[in-house]
Amino acid sequence: MQARILGIDPGSQVTGYGVVERRDGAVVHVAHGTLRASRDGSPERRLADLYRSLLEVIEHHRPELASVEQLFVARGARSALVLGQARGVALAAIGAAGLALHEYAPARIKQSVTGNGRASKLQVQRVVKRLLSLERAPAADAADALAAALCHAQAGRLERLGVRTRARRRPTARTPLVRVDRRSLR
Amino acid sequence: MQARILGIDPGSQVTGYGVVERRDGAVVHVAHGTLRASRDGSPERRLADLYRSLLEVIEHHRPELASVEQLFVARGARSALVLGQARGVALAAIGAAGLALHEYAPARIKQSVTGNGRASKLQVQRVVKRLLSLERAPAADAADALAAALCHAQAGRLERLGVRTRARRRPTARTPLVRVDRRSLR
Repeated sequence: MQARILGIDPGSQVTGYGVVERRDGAVVHVAHGTLRASRDGSPERRLADLYRSLLEVIEHHRPELASVEQLFVARGARSALVLGQARGVALAAIGAAGLALHEYAPARIKQSVTGNGRASKLQVQRVVKRLLSLERAPAADAADALAAALCHAQAGRLERLGVRTRARRRPTARTPLVRVDRRSLR
Repeated sequence: MQARILGIDPGSQVTGYGVVERRDGAVVHVAHGTLRASRDGSPERRLADLYRSLLEVIEHHRPELASVEQLFVARGARSALVLGQARGVALAAIGAAGLALHEYAPARIKQSVTGNGRASKLQVQRVVKRLLSLERAPAADAADALAAALCHAQAGRLERLGVRTRARRRPTARTPLVRVDRRSLR
């Protein structure tokens, strides 16, 4: 069974993306990167660029599924609105490309990838690098996007196995839930 | 001097739009309507539809400018995020079409159109109908969109005249700041 999954971490300034592929139970890295808004662009110009860039990423890597962090609403209405704008554009691109969208809570993604629902950004970067056998740790936003994609790759497998995906005990960082085929680089 | 202005009132369920044209100091109605998300659509599908529909409206009516209400952030982070998503898509469409975006505070729009910064939705509908000599009052979201467009039509003129656009006294509803050419229907 094979599925290519696009993770997106939308942001008003930087949007991370990551593509992984699930092949017969293992997960391999395909690509990742960050889309950075030009600083001198107006909001409408930056959001239009984001939409176009995401469609280009989708066209290039042809994922079947998209995985995005659920809305994190604790930071106040102002930042929620600005974040929501970038997120809306990402979702519109996902919808326009006909991808199935899956959303996961931030803690679920961290838990799934690092074994710790409260992992720091740095921890996520390190674990993603290790799991996907990357030469360098991805930038924080790309690592978060890869983590979202990995979380979905994992969730799908657990559901097929009939496993509860909500962990009752807190696993250690040394036993991540995502299993990765370490032989496949890039 | 002539300018065609697109007003947009983005919403997660219904997005209103309105197009007016400024012709030598008068403002005439061109079109208005509402874009309604299909209820059974997923969020990403609805946002993709919104983006496409707005580009169709822009392509059809060819405005040079867009006017959108500024973010209203008092309602809580959750609704701010959902509203932000629709707003982000609207801004991306405006940016993709190369329109210049102008943003106005909600109270400024109501003030400009009805003469009362705290006017109700119903008042805005009635005044917009009267100002633009429409046969029927537009739906609330379309009326808000027309009001945003009218506000910009007005703001541009006041700025050219060197008039302070922030009213010091509260004008009555009978003396709206927007002057409209009543001879031109539709």
